[in-house]
Amino acid sequence: MEYRIEKDTMGEVKVPADKLWGAQTERSRNNFKIGAPASMPLEIVHGFAYLKKAAAYTNCELGALAVEKRDLIAKVCDEILTGMHDDQFPLVIWQTGSGTQSNMNVNEVIANRAHQIAGNVIGEGEKTIQPNDDVNKSQSSNDTFPTGMHIAVYKKIVENTIPGVTQLRDTLKKKSEEFKDVVKIGRTHLMDATPLTLGQEFSGYVSQLDHGLKALNNTLEHLSELALGGTAVGTGLNTPKGYAKRVSEYIAEFTGLPFITAPNKFEALAAHDAFVETHGALKQLAVSLNKIANDIRMMASGPRSGIGEIIIPANEPGSSIMPGKVNPTQCEALTMVCAQVMGNDVAVTVGGTQGHYELNVFKPMMAANLLQSAQLIGDACVSFDVNCAAGIEPNHAVIKELLNNSLMLVTALNTKIGYYKAAEIANTAHKNGTTLKEEAINLGYVSAEDYDAWVKPEDMVGGLK
Amino acid sequence: MEYRIEKDTMGEVKVPADKLWGAQTERSRNNFKIGAPASMPLEIVHGFAYLKKAAAYTNCELGALAVEKRDLIAKVCDEILTGMHDDQFPLVIWQTGSGTQSNMNVNEVIANRAHQIAGNVIGEGEKTIQPNDDVNKSQSSNDTFPTGMHIAVYKKIVENTIPGVTQLRDTLKKKSEEFKDVVKIGRTHLMDATPLTLGQEFSGYVSQLDHGLKALNNTLEHLSELALGGTAVGTGLNTPKGYAKRVSEYIAEFTGLPFITAPNKFEALAAHDAFVETHGALKQLAVSLNKIANDIRMMASGPRSGIGEIIIPANEPGSSIMPGKVNPTQCEALTMVCAQVMGNDVAVTVGGTQGHYELNVFKPMMAANLLQSAQLIGDACVSFDVNCAAGIEPNHAVIKELLNNSLMLVTALNTKIGYYKAAEIANTAHKNGTTLKEEAINLGYVSAEDYDAWVKPEDMVGGLK
Amino acid sequence: MEYRIEKDTMGEVKVPADKLWGAQTERSRNNFKIGAPASMPLEIVHGFAYLKKAAAYTNCELGALAVEKRDLIAKVCDEILTGMHDDQFPLVIWQTGSGTQSNMNVNEVIANRAHQIAGNVIGEGEKTIQPNDDVNKSQSSNDTFPTGMHIAVYKKIVENTIPGVTQLRDTLKKKSEEFKDVVKIGRTHLMDATPLTLGQEFSGYVSQLDHGLKALNNTLEHLSELALGGTAVGTGLNTPKGYAKRVSEYIAEFTGLPFITAPNKFEALAAHDAFVETHGALKQLAVSLNKIANDIRMMASGPRSGIGEIIIPANEPGSSIMPGKVNPTQCEALTMVCAQVMGNDVAVTVGGTQGHYELNVFKPMMAANLLQSAQLIGDACVSFDVNCAAGIEPNHAVIKELLNNSLMLVTALNTKIGYYKAAEIANTAHKNGTTLKEEAINLGYVSAEDYDAWVKPEDMVGGLK
Amino acid sequence: MEYRIEKDTMGEVKVPADKLWGAQTERSRNNFKIGAPASMPLEIVHGFAYLKKAAAYTNCELGALAVEKRDLIAKVCDEILTGMHDDQFPLVIWQTGSGTQSNMNVNEVIANRAHQIAGNVIGEGEKTIQPNDDVNKSQSSNDTFPTGMHIAVYKKIVENTIPGVTQLRDTLKKKSEEFKDVVKIGRTHLMDATPLTLGQEFSGYVSQLDHGLKALNNTLEHLSELALGGTAVGTGLNTPKGYAKRVSEYIAEFTGLPFITAPNKFEALAAHDAFVETHGALKQLAVSLNKIANDIRMMASGPRSGIGEIIIPANEPGSSIMPGKVNPTQCEALTMVCAQVMGNDVAVTVGGTQGHYELNVFKPMMAANLLQSAQLIGDACVSFDVNCAAGIEPNHAVIKELLNNSLMLVTALNTKIGYYKAAEIANTAHKNGTTLKEEAINLGYVSAEDYDAWVKPEDMVGGLK
Repeated sequence: MEYRIEKDTMGEVKVPADKLWGAQTERSRNNFKIGAPASMPLEIVHGFAYLKKAAAYTNCELGALAVEKRDLIAKVCDEILTGMHDDQFPLVIWQTGSGTQSNMNVNEVIANRAHQIAGNVIGEGEKTIQPNDDVNKSQSSNDTFPTGMHIAVYKKIVENTIPGVTQLRDTLKKKSEEFKDVVKIGRTHLMDATPLTLGQEFSGYVSQLDHGLKALNNTLEHLSELALGGTAVGTGLNTPKGYAKRVSEYIAEFTGLPFITAPNKFEALAAHDAFVETHGALKQLAVSLNKIANDIRMMASGPRSGIGEIIIPANEPGSSIMPGKVNPTQCEALTMVCAQVMGNDVAVTVGGTQGHYELNVFKPMMAANLLQSAQLIGDACVSFDVNCAAGIEPNHAVIKELLNNSLMLVTALNTKIGYYKAAEIANTAHKNGTTLKEEAINLGYVSAEDYDAWVKPEDMVGGLK
Repeated sequence: MEYRIEKDTMGEVKVPADKLWGAQTERSRNNFKIGAPASMPLEIVHGFAYLKKAAAYTNCELGALAVEKRDLIAKVCDEILTGMHDDQFPLVIWQTGSGTQSNMNVNEVIANRAHQIAGNVIGEGEKTIQPNDDVNKSQSSNDTFPTGMHIAVYKKIVENTIPGVTQLRDTLKKKSEEFKDVVKIGRTHLMDATPLTLGQEFSGYVSQLDHGLKALNNTLEHLSELALGGTAVGTGLNTPKGYAKRVSEYIAEFTGLPFITAPNKFEALAAHDAFVETHGALKQLAVSLNKIANDIRMMASGPRSGIGEIIIPANEPGSSIMPGKVNPTQCEALTMVCAQVMGNDVAVTVGGTQGHYELNVFKPMMAANLLQSAQLIGDACVSFDVNCAAGIEPNHAVIKELLNNSLMLVTALNTKIGYYKAAEIANTAHKNGTTLKEEAINLGYVSAEDYDAWVKPEDMVGGLK
Repeated sequence: MEYRIEKDTMGEVKVPADKLWGAQTERSRNNFKIGAPASMPLEIVHGFAYLKKAAAYTNCELGALAVEKRDLIAKVCDEILTGMHDDQFPLVIWQTGSGTQSNMNVNEVIANRAHQIAGNVIGEGEKTIQPNDDVNKSQSSNDTFPTGMHIAVYKKIVENTIPGVTQLRDTLKKKSEEFKDVVKIGRTHLMDATPLTLGQEFSGYVSQLDHGLKALNNTLEHLSELALGGTAVGTGLNTPKGYAKRVSEYIAEFTGLPFITAPNKFEALAAHDAFVETHGALKQLAVSLNKIANDIRMMASGPRSGIGEIIIPANEPGSSIMPGKVNPTQCEALTMVCAQVMGNDVAVTVGGTQGHYELNVFKPMMAANLLQSAQLIGDACVSFDVNCAAGIEPNHAVIKELLNNSLMLVTALNTKIGYYKAAEIANTAHKNGTTLKEEAINLGYVSAEDYDAWVKPEDMVGGLK
Repeated sequence: MEYRIEKDTMGEVKVPADKLWGAQTERSRNNFKIGAPASMPLEIVHGFAYLKKAAAYTNCELGALAVEKRDLIAKVCDEILTGMHDDQFPLVIWQTGSGTQSNMNVNEVIANRAHQIAGNVIGEGEKTIQPNDDVNKSQSSNDTFPTGMHIAVYKKIVENTIPGVTQLRDTLKKKSEEFKDVVKIGRTHLMDATPLTLGQEFSGYVSQLDHGLKALNNTLEHLSELALGGTAVGTGLNTPKGYAKRVSEYIAEFTGLPFITAPNKFEALAAHDAFVETHGALKQLAVSLNKIANDIRMMASGPRSGIGEIIIPANEPGSSIMPGKVNPTQCEALTMVCAQVMGNDVAVTVGGTQGHYELNVFKPMMAANLLQSAQLIGDACVSFDVNCAAGIEPNHAVIKELLNNSLMLVTALNTKIGYYKAAEIANTAHKNGTTLKEEAINLGYVSAEDYDAWVKPEDMVGGLK
């Protein structure tokens, strides 16, 4: 392999000749061989591209950077955003906890690529653009990394998570309306209970997701606060006047998202409670989705020895040994995602507690977990929607049979003949394996006519329909 | 011990003669000897008192309960709220997951006590008030228990947690202003960094708690939704028309809190995402408080071999063997609380995922954890405030010495002589154990005059002050 | 209320006259009003009683304490172990993280009670026994509290947890044998699968608990290591030669448990990995128990619209509104316990990570969580055993019907006619709502005789029976 | 792109012509677009290669597979183990929870590649080897996937985790011995305490890792139990007599690891407590490592305003804005890993609780988390060892200064003049900013000669050295 020499304040480093990165990136590659290869999420790298461009524009506007340099930096940032340099970011999550080395990775790639764009050969001549003095101007890893990760996560939430959850929510809403007249037996404690409609059951899922989306939206305001402008410890040392506000306006403009400069930069560097808050909302969604997926797989269980009230699409052969079996595989994928999100929540929480003085140094880990959770929930909702929820159909025959068999319709008699007599009817039918009607008459508590008039499942679901 | 006979649908049960509870409570005591004695939080019992009274009023208003019965029920509920029957609720958290037996415990106590108030002897004659037919009218355990726990938690949050956190937040805000001119060395990665003021550092804590309080307030809307009126499965079977809305209005009136009837009762019984949401906000506060308490104990460490930048009140002898030592005991209590809240969050989350069909049966466990977290955070903030935060004073001598010793003031030279030269000065001083000024001059990069003009810690903290 | 004056190195304190505690206990009561009243587990206080007695014996034997003082101390310790002073320990978990104040609480109670036993009035005359110089001799909070908590937890595990889990395990084993010939349909992905016996299903539960008990036993060795003798930082300063080993021998003798002196006292004070390890095993048991309880409640679901393969005991009326319903309440209590243990595991883990230098200051919180988990698992297993597992019976009629209905017996044809043809038979029967046998013959793949000879559920369960 | 047609029981599927996989793999790619691309750990694929080869050998030996087929299957498995087909396994973790589709992916790749090796063109002619009837013979996804994941994890633990932790442990042991005479101030509650040696402090870390390694080793026995031979539900249906035992022997032979056939196959399919157990031990190690890394970064903090007792290697420039700063980056990477492992533990735990009936369907998620934790801990220990621990040196000047300044040496006077007088000396020195010796003499409690004779830090560390 061919190498060139790159240099930083510690001295010289050999870097693969065909790579755009520099000395500090290379040091990090060698010093942190943990769970290699590259695991730093590219979303963060792209978040950096927005902020480096915004910083260049702001520095230029405030007289701290030449227009030519600004344009070169911006050009490389735009290239990065197309994905064309994705293989130039070889670092892992498990590096310096401030993400310093990924900040330098971006600085170095931008500087070297700008040198190239300016018509030079990397490694030859003085760099057209300096990674520290130019690309990183008015910045520190301590304010760029949290800014890059806020951009990455905010985008992921609004572009992936919310649309994915909303898509599933809309399908469930549609199903809830389709199923509004399908009266079925209710179940509490997994035991037969009074009836409700399948539509009512699904309306509960819709309500859960509506609350979850609202909770997630509530977290976006904290997430929109950017650390940039705080530099090393939050004081904004070495930034031009007006920089923090202006750079956040550029980021808002470039991303099309309502980012603002964090009112308190000391929090923005030293704590990542915004991440804890947002991940908490993702965890809440995971809790809701887990409940929904569990219900659906139980209702779809069978085909002959389960509950069998609904039919879900068959997307693949179920088993390599048992022919004819179709499994609730989308429910399984979704609940595995939910378990992962619950775990990630603890990782994010633990990281969040451990900021010390002016800096929290669990940034890459927290960001990686939050991005993973946001991606998985969004993707899994879409997959579950397309491959399962949208195709759910009631098994009317089974639903009807289970309903009519049920002893719990006796509740309809509660207000007519009192709790104790109603209980006696149900217990007798249960003991004898008979129907409620037979025993109601046998015990002399209800006439046949009254029974038919009083016990109508479709009348028992109406209170709140 | 003396006993009387109580009866339920399963038959007769012997109950201690001096107790107000009935058959089902006694069965539960015998069937669930888990972590005894009584652990069901009394806050939930009191929540039940509000709702039973509200149900009685609503039933009466809607023609389903006689005025005399309403008044008897209401009278006992008012007694319960004074705490005079607290020893009549002997059940544990680890019972039926719907809390059915605690609902019955309340029904039975109200019925027996009403019988007594009506001038009768408990166990003699027909009950003046029936626990099922009267006290529990238009209700089911499935909608009463979640209602009782929402009332309990909402009250705890607004009466204990929010005031406690706010009290600490206000003290930290006051300290932040008091310390606004105390310039000190910053620390990132636990290492010396550029300076900031102690007031700025504390402003970060204030900002964290402000965000946390906002996040907690955001969850109250979901928490204000009451399940009552859903009865067994959410359909509201066996409730009079208008009941759900009216009963929530009575609860709002009796508690003075903005409760509403849950728009979707199916969610309100089958899922407790509102609890997951609220506990998520408590966990966020725990994360913030942990960071704050850690910082304070590190800054107070010493007295001679630690950091020693602040002085915290001495509230007790620190050690039984080491004289003269004062420990950050309030920080320790607070961070233990934070760890507990992080653990409780997982318990609440796990419980939240496991609702099945029409009912979540982890209610008592979820409620107990949420109440504990809300109480502990509120109490610990007050304790920390009164016994520690309010008494924090800067150790000006130490702060000044550490600041002036620091090599990191070199950052002030960054924009004057460039990154690499500045780094060289710092490295040289570090190696030689000398000061920055000496080496800046020795290396010929800065004159003494320029050094004094350029390196002013008090000028380095101003960007965002 | 009457008070007397007690004194410590900080000065005088007013203490309720009828209480045995002294100045430092009283200070702690006032300084830590967090989740009051008293929450420090009495098991730890009793653990202290063992160690204070052992320390007195060892100090005496090594010439550091008079025989009379030893006997007075030992006498009070014996009293404490009977429970007669349980109301003299009013402190909360949320105090100094080293448990210093609970150590002093014990020292003070022993000293004052000894003064009383020696014929004096508390508060009058010089104390017969000094809390620091005598009761705490050769000790520090830093080595006594972890010793007390190890004693408490070890006892709880061997006296409560292991017997409780073993009792349930033995019942499940007995059931597994009783049910060894009950052939039933298997279920994977909640879907019908090939048959197995109910006994085989239960044997899996037994195997889980056997593995769990083994894992728990594996942790006892670490737990048996006592910190006592390390004093303040682990060096054993101010202890007589031979003290650490001898005092652990006394503790082993007094408790009848195989305690040893920790080979490394620095770990024993600064880290509580032994607790993390033991709680990890409790969590594993919780995972197993959760699986078992879930299976049982699903198999018991119904009575008419669920699975209904087993019958569990009816211990209480199931619902206040729905007559005739019996719920899996023991499963619910047990799974709530499991969720709590999972949460506690995180609290213990977080506490375990945060030891600093020579001391971990999350001791009371870690110990309280571990004791709660150990107690709850033991109790819940016994409750589940007595009130549920021991009474489980197969519902033979349902089991047989579900088995014979099943399409999955087709697997028996897999090796006879190949995967694809077998799949075709099952799919056809599924589509037509017919039996496997009909379609096997219709499709011409199997004769009636061969079908009967080949498809015998009782032959399909034998491989590993 | 070119395609060929592959077929399964559901019909035809278009597969990229240059890929070895078949219909079911392609269906899974399309049905589970969740967190794509490929995330199923290759370690599991390689685990499958071992087991498929072992199954072929066993089937052949027991007369169920032709020698030619065995050899073709074995040949492809050997190729897979070299990594040459790593790009043929495109599936994600978030698929069917039994890992069925990854089992089929392996079956399909082996069958197609065998066809190729046998001189045919994929997609042309009848397959030489059938994925179901040959490669999957005597197997089900339900027993292969857990077998593959046990192999993968066991190998990772013994080849990566244990060696990595042991390497760090050995370095710390060596340092502990090197530093055995470096007397330093102890710290409890972050406050100055009695002295110990730096070697003693490090010996605590060694003891933690020794206990952790022992705990991890204790879990290997459960992990060595293989599900293979259980087939679909644990009964071993459709396996030849003797198969389960023999196939595990082949796996043991091929891997060189002590695998055995699980004594209870029902547990082995339906529960993954072995994973919960092993991950629990990894979490314990994470707890220990977090404590160690925290201590080291606090002791290395400074260079001028921190503790500064040790010097750690400078591996990279510390900051892009603050020259001259060297950060504890390896500590940060390691503690981020620890937080991740704590989170993963919850994910594994949650997955572990949710097995239903005969199958746990959280397998891929649980396996992926366990593999990640095992890899990260092993890698991070090596990285921390090489780049930090091995280069740690005491800063003797600082250590000595902090020691001699300390007031806590007063403890040496405790046994000489009693607790209260010693406390008075320390308090006076603390108040006056003087030394202990001065005040001891001033107060008339100790002569200068006695002081020098009694207060010798090096004598205060010896008790347990």
